[in-house]
Amino acid sequence: MPSDNVPSRPRRSERARRAILDATYDLVLEKGYAKLTIEAIAARAGVGKQTIYRWWPSKGAVMIDAFLPEGAGEETEVDLPDTGDLAADLKGVLRATADEFADPAFSARLRALSAEILLAPELAPDVAERVLGPGLRAYKKRLLAAQQAGVIAQGDDVDLDVAVELLLGPLHYRWLHDLGGITHDYVDTLVDFTLAALRPGATTTSSSSS
Amino acid sequence: MPSDNVPSRPRRSERARRAILDATYDLVLEKGYAKLTIEAIAARAGVGKQTIYRWWPSKGAVMIDAFLPEGAGEETEVDLPDTGDLAADLKGVLRATADEFADPAFSARLRALSAEILLAPELAPDVAERVLGPGLRAYKKRLLAAQQAGVIAQGDDVDLDVAVELLLGPLHYRWLHDLGGITHDYVDTLVDFTLAALRPGATTTSSSSS
Repeated sequence: MPSDNVPSRPRRSERARRAILDATYDLVLEKGYAKLTIEAIAARAGVGKQTIYRWWPSKGAVMIDAFLPEGAGEETEVDLPDTGDLAADLKGVLRATADEFADPAFSARLRALSAEILLAPELAPDVAERVLGPGLRAYKKRLLAAQQAGVIAQGDDVDLDVAVELLLGPLHYRWLHDLGGITHDYVDTLVDFTLAALRPGATTTSSSSS
Repeated sequence: MPSDNVPSRPRRSERARRAILDATYDLVLEKGYAKLTIEAIAARAGVGKQTIYRWWPSKGAVMIDAFLPEGAGEETEVDLPDTGDLAADLKGVLRATADEFADPAFSARLRALSAEILLAPELAPDVAERVLGPGLRAYKKRLLAAQQAGVIAQGDDVDLDVAVELLLGPLHYRWLHDLGGITHDYVDTLVDFTLAALRPGATTTSSSSS
């Protein structure tokens, strides 16, 4: 194992940082997050443990950085497609998400991230902001555009944050608890239900009796 | 620490089992699931580690039993209230759930259970069946009754499993990722959206343009 000296040049430092993140990513996919250790990351990356602890306080913190796309953060905003057909746009994006859930690497990544914020809740805000934030804001922005176009209900009482959670929450819940398949049909149903709930005037008459 | 002999009588065996479950429950609430060990459970319960391993294969398995109500399982079915007002019934139950999420003991329990099924996905079906199953089936049964009464949309294309996930999934997603408060207003909004989505004819016209 190489010595644990402070990298003398930014390039070397960046190389070590990248090696640590790559090692973490690979080890989570190979062995699962439960068995990930700082020792194993250090050995795989060819650095000393102290090099890792210089930049990250815990294996969870390394893992979050390892699984974020390069440069992810507040400045990395994304936009949903806007073809003029809200249902089709949402279904297209959520079908791609469903495909991602079927990918073992994606699933292992989400499993590790979710476990980490359960075991170390103080990391949840960072994960919510950096991992989920750009996506959540993109959905909300698309719904706002639809609202301005009069396609979905308007008004202060229409909570678009909750609307976004209607699209994404059930999918994560189903995945986490293995309640059923994450198929294209499934996400289409989520979109249909959510848009029905958001139709102008839809919630005003929901207090029905049975 | 007491000796690790096999309890000679059923009553003693049951006492040891109960002590182990109580110790597990208390330790999770005191120290968090990440720091829970079989050693600590054994010490607190006053039994040997082998006594625990005789009944459970892992700390996760003990924890699941510790957090289940006595006798929970397939035979423990529950019913939601049916006052004739579907919205009020659902809001009543979900408001009580929101209150539970505000209880640190409940939150610690759910955190531990969720982390365990992420780290050991093979436990997910057991948790889904025993922990979530009775609740999921109770919601579905209430929606079925409302469907038969003609209050919500009927037909094979109305997926009531997804409808139940619309009520519960966003709430768990919001909690897990610390996206916002789990308030009475919040769960009321979930019910309003879900019932709007389930209104007869609601989803047939959702393919609107914007």
